[in-house]
Amino acid sequence: MEAIDRFTVHYLITAGSAAEAEHRAHDICIEQTAEMPYETIPMHIRESITGQIISQKQTESNLFETSISFPVSAAGNEITQFLNVIFGNISLKPGIRIHGTGWNSLTHIFHGPVNGIDGIRSQINIEGRPLSCSALKPMGLNSDELANICYRMALGGIDIIKDDHGLANQVKAPFSERILACLNAVKRAEDQTGKRTLYVPNITGDGFETWRRYEIARELGAGGVLVSPQLCGLSVLSDLTKNEDQIPVIAHPAFSGSFITNPEHGFTPEFYYGHLWRALGADAVIYPNAGGRFSFSEELCLYLNRALRQNSLPFQPAFPVPAGGIQLESVSQWMKKYGGDTIFLIGSSLYRHPDGLEAACRNFQQKIESYEPQ
Amino acid sequence: MEAIDRFTVHYLITAGSAAEAEHRAHDICIEQTAEMPYETIPMHIRESITGQIISQKQTESNLFETSISFPVSAAGNEITQFLNVIFGNISLKPGIRIHGTGWNSLTHIFHGPVNGIDGIRSQINIEGRPLSCSALKPMGLNSDELANICYRMALGGIDIIKDDHGLANQVKAPFSERILACLNAVKRAEDQTGKRTLYVPNITGDGFETWRRYEIARELGAGGVLVSPQLCGLSVLSDLTKNEDQIPVIAHPAFSGSFITNPEHGFTPEFYYGHLWRALGADAVIYPNAGGRFSFSEELCLYLNRALRQNSLPFQPAFPVPAGGIQLESVSQWMKKYGGDTIFLIGSSLYRHPDGLEAACRNFQQKIESYEPQ
Repeated sequence: MEAIDRFTVHYLITAGSAAEAEHRAHDICIEQTAEMPYETIPMHIRESITGQIISQKQTESNLFETSISFPVSAAGNEITQFLNVIFGNISLKPGIRIHGTGWNSLTHIFHGPVNGIDGIRSQINIEGRPLSCSALKPMGLNSDELANICYRMALGGIDIIKDDHGLANQVKAPFSERILACLNAVKRAEDQTGKRTLYVPNITGDGFETWRRYEIARELGAGGVLVSPQLCGLSVLSDLTKNEDQIPVIAHPAFSGSFITNPEHGFTPEFYYGHLWRALGADAVIYPNAGGRFSFSEELCLYLNRALRQNSLPFQPAFPVPAGGIQLESVSQWMKKYGGDTIFLIGSSLYRHPDGLEAACRNFQQKIESYEPQ
Repeated sequence: MEAIDRFTVHYLITAGSAAEAEHRAHDICIEQTAEMPYETIPMHIRESITGQIISQKQTESNLFETSISFPVSAAGNEITQFLNVIFGNISLKPGIRIHGTGWNSLTHIFHGPVNGIDGIRSQINIEGRPLSCSALKPMGLNSDELANICYRMALGGIDIIKDDHGLANQVKAPFSERILACLNAVKRAEDQTGKRTLYVPNITGDGFETWRRYEIARELGAGGVLVSPQLCGLSVLSDLTKNEDQIPVIAHPAFSGSFITNPEHGFTPEFYYGHLWRALGADAVIYPNAGGRFSFSEELCLYLNRALRQNSLPFQPAFPVPAGGIQLESVSQWMKKYGGDTIFLIGSSLYRHPDGLEAACRNFQQKIESYEPQ
């Protein structure tokens, strides 16, 4: 038999016994490839097309780490089909969670970040410290009102202002009008202060519209774009990020929670946001920080940061963007824990600052700029 | 205050008490719109932009049916933003499940099926009975081998042959080559038998590629296409199905299980596949039938069938396509249960038939054609 290139997927299978886990692993091997009883698969392709169990190890009473290899050819050089092979039909079955995959055989499908941490740093010309970020909101304001918020944030010296992921193309603040107004506002503040601020509009839209908004944002001079991959489709993230001269793309987790919140199903957050979205080309990934209104633990956040930055993957490192649960009072503590290659996103607590938004941003920025490497 | 058009979303909230459920409902109202503390939302837009609790009712010990209305303007005339409003950030929080939405205020965003049940029937010119369907597989075969399977199925008289959802654009059977070979094979069989068979290729691909494959399939004369909306993006399904002269689109549930398998999270299957995918324009929806290798109950399947067909929605009815768990021996029973407006999909058990595929399909077809309305 000819040698066939394969890639490995690491599953966590919940099962009552090793025998049951092995049975379920065999089921994955078939369900995700030939999808027919083994005896009905034509003899000449049986071995070459089905998944193969590489190893199985019990790690907790009902949990089995199972590695399965699939032929690279099954994924057919595309992201949708790769996702279909690793978790298509079995997404409908309980007790299967993915926590890793071997990326080295997949670099013809996944390109990773074009900008990454270094590229975002060079966009804004800042080395050696974390970046500050805040969110422009709420939806319902018109473009001038939103631009005024941008202006005050930029006067406060913030590094990155990103649209709230709920700012789309609503009548009150249509996409192009809002982008232009906000870019002008940031420019006006920069002219006064000499400090550069990136405005990052949300481009998530239906079908072709995401690409159209990317092009508008880029042509108008935006320093990056925000996209929610699970809303517009994971392959869209990859498509948006494949050109050498692209502006940075920050990925937002809206609508993705169902894939990562069930401890016995879907994906581990560090794999999903940390490896998969990085592999798809996200230059930075927003995630719900520990201690906030979502339920990630600090340990998980540290795993996630590592997954986004680790050098063992064949992709450039991406910025972790912890968001939610960070206050002006706590950001210095988080900087010590997460280190300099982090974008810290504070939204709500700046808006409720007693001295107003500009002062709040200035205070935030002072803390960020006081960062000292450990 | 001016009258504002709103739409209602029906959530199932898991909570320990009515007070906790109400607290969580308030959280949804804010998190999904302004996404900032209520007191920081500018006064002039507070009422117009935030969600409003319409009703709350305890239905089980820990379960609360909660209806929340949102301004239609928040969804900004697009599907991605509609999904973001109903389940964007809160997808990251536990214990929230959607089981309905008021569609009448949303017909400017959702168009529903263009073909629907009547359109598929007229494509194949069959009234008054269910349709038979089988799946072309496995991946790994080349185009000629797959076409040969099509030929035998079509000789057996099957109504619809759909690609396995894992047939994409693999080297062994590239998309255009496969489509052409299979369409020719079906045509050859039709010329012999006089019986029409629809061949429905899988067009799911990365980004623009899905549209490109749709156009190729249509130009080559395919009787419909298969797409996995959760792989290519839900808005892509809508975009593909919005033209008056489009060929039927059958939706496949690959990669969507995480949204519907957690009883306390995501969406109920009848809402997700039955209402949402129908609203997005699917003319037929494949789902894992009861009694097969997945875990839907017969009761759930009946709900799902009803959701796809019911006249109370402002959209054309779509065909339910139960798949998996249907054998030649049981299909007559399922026809009695599910009725004539159903496409019955039998895959594996035809391939393992002792008399071969053509005989198996003929047997299947005889049973389907013997349908008698109750």
